Amino acid sequence: MKIGIFGTGIVGQTLAGKLAALGHDVVIGTRDPQATLARTEKDAMGFPAFREWHASHAGVKLVPFAEAAKHAELAVNVLNGGNAVEALRAHEGALAGKVLVDVTNPLDFSKGFPPSLLVGNTDSLGEQIQRALPRSKVVKTLNTVNAFLMVDPKSLAGGEHTMFLAGNDADAKATVAGLLREGFGWTDLVDLGDLSNARATEAYVTLWARLYGALGVPQFNVRVVR
Amino acid sequence: MKIGIFGTGIVGQTLAGKLAALGHDVVIGTRDPQATLARTEKDAMGFPAFREWHASHAGVKLVPFAEAAKHAELAVNVLNGGNAVEALRAHEGALAGKVLVDVTNPLDFSKGFPPSLLVGNTDSLGEQIQRALPRSKVVKTLNTVNAFLMVDPKSLAGGEHTMFLAGNDADAKATVAGLLREGFGWTDLVDLGDLSNARATEAYVTLWARLYGALGVPQFNVRVVR
Repeated sequence: MKIGIFGTGIVGQTLAGKLAALGHDVVIGTRDPQATLARTEKDAMGFPAFREWHASHAGVKLVPFAEAAKHAELAVNVLNGGNAVEALRAHEGALAGKVLVDVTNPLDFSKGFPPSLLVGNTDSLGEQIQRALPRSKVVKTLNTVNAFLMVDPKSLAGGEHTMFLAGNDADAKATVAGLLREGFGWTDLVDLGDLSNARATEAYVTLWARLYGALGVPQFNVRVVR
Repeated sequence: MKIGIFGTGIVGQTLAGKLAALGHDVVIGTRDPQATLARTEKDAMGFPAFREWHASHAGVKLVPFAEAAKHAELAVNVLNGGNAVEALRAHEGALAGKVLVDVTNPLDFSKGFPPSLLVGNTDSLGEQIQRALPRSKVVKTLNTVNAFLMVDPKSLAGGEHTMFLAGNDADAKATVAGLLREGFGWTDLVDLGDLSNARATEAYVTLWARLYGALGVPQFNVRVVR
């Protein structure tokens, strides 16, 4: 599948690397590829600059957002929560009719860790994106675990934990569920229903962040026991 | 232990019944005992009126809030989320120095199901109660599962799922953890830290409500897999 990933951080790199390894035709979109490749400092979480990852993943092209939007049959949003809506809105036309997997959480780190949310309760980032790109098929998923677990759930407890999906389009959710299952190895998927359920998984990230604080490592997830 | 439960709904009944069966000296507080006992209609969730439960649990006295506050060595808040702060504040003096277990979620059902939250993100009901009763030792717990699981976790998957605690007083949390472990049978307790972490477990209830919608039954919980 032709996949366009919006965002060059650790989540974008990890998803791009895995999807490319699975044989998909993946590009990563950024505002200014030259500027992204020029950066040498580590990111806020201490991960190496994009150029270091890219040096060993040259098959994944770094392109301007517009080119990523045009390339994509399926797009993935891993942009910063504060920028995502406006950055994606600019490519509404190119993304029309396409599946748009929204992985971003609307995290506000302005007061430090743990973060609060920029939007929540009666709205969500997933719904904001859907309103900004009404012709795209937004599926909220993967936002409840760290990047490494997203693409390798079996690395924790043999994969015996849960991933949630929410979205208004059943076919889009089936496409994404297929990637999660056959591509990444998720076995316990819970379809919460329409995209308003993004409020729930984004709210859960409040608990995720505090569990990260309590447990001291990001390699954990919840299993819905029922 | 002398326990005073604030609230006569299904959660209060279930906790009172279990705690009394464990040998604790339990009273239930309500605004007006005569009015509570006079009601014959089912509650909003279809549970029988308090008087029906009370007929088979006559050992648990129904008393005015003031008497419950005075009786309690340990108090439990299971009042409605919209009323809890003001109802408890009136008994700040009687509850001073005591452990106050806050089980209530600040749910807003004014737009139907699933509910939104009356407070969240940068504050929580647990913290509001702590500010209203600064001399009490508030411990937030049990608010992430339904009443029957609270007191009988082993009824689901042998108890292989998680309960969270948050509170500012380590001794109060140890007392409550003891009740949860030895009294109710919880085996996997996660202490999230201070009471600001009530924001996280109250936010999780957004996901709980939507999982209830997706799964169709309330007999579920999450296990933190790590």
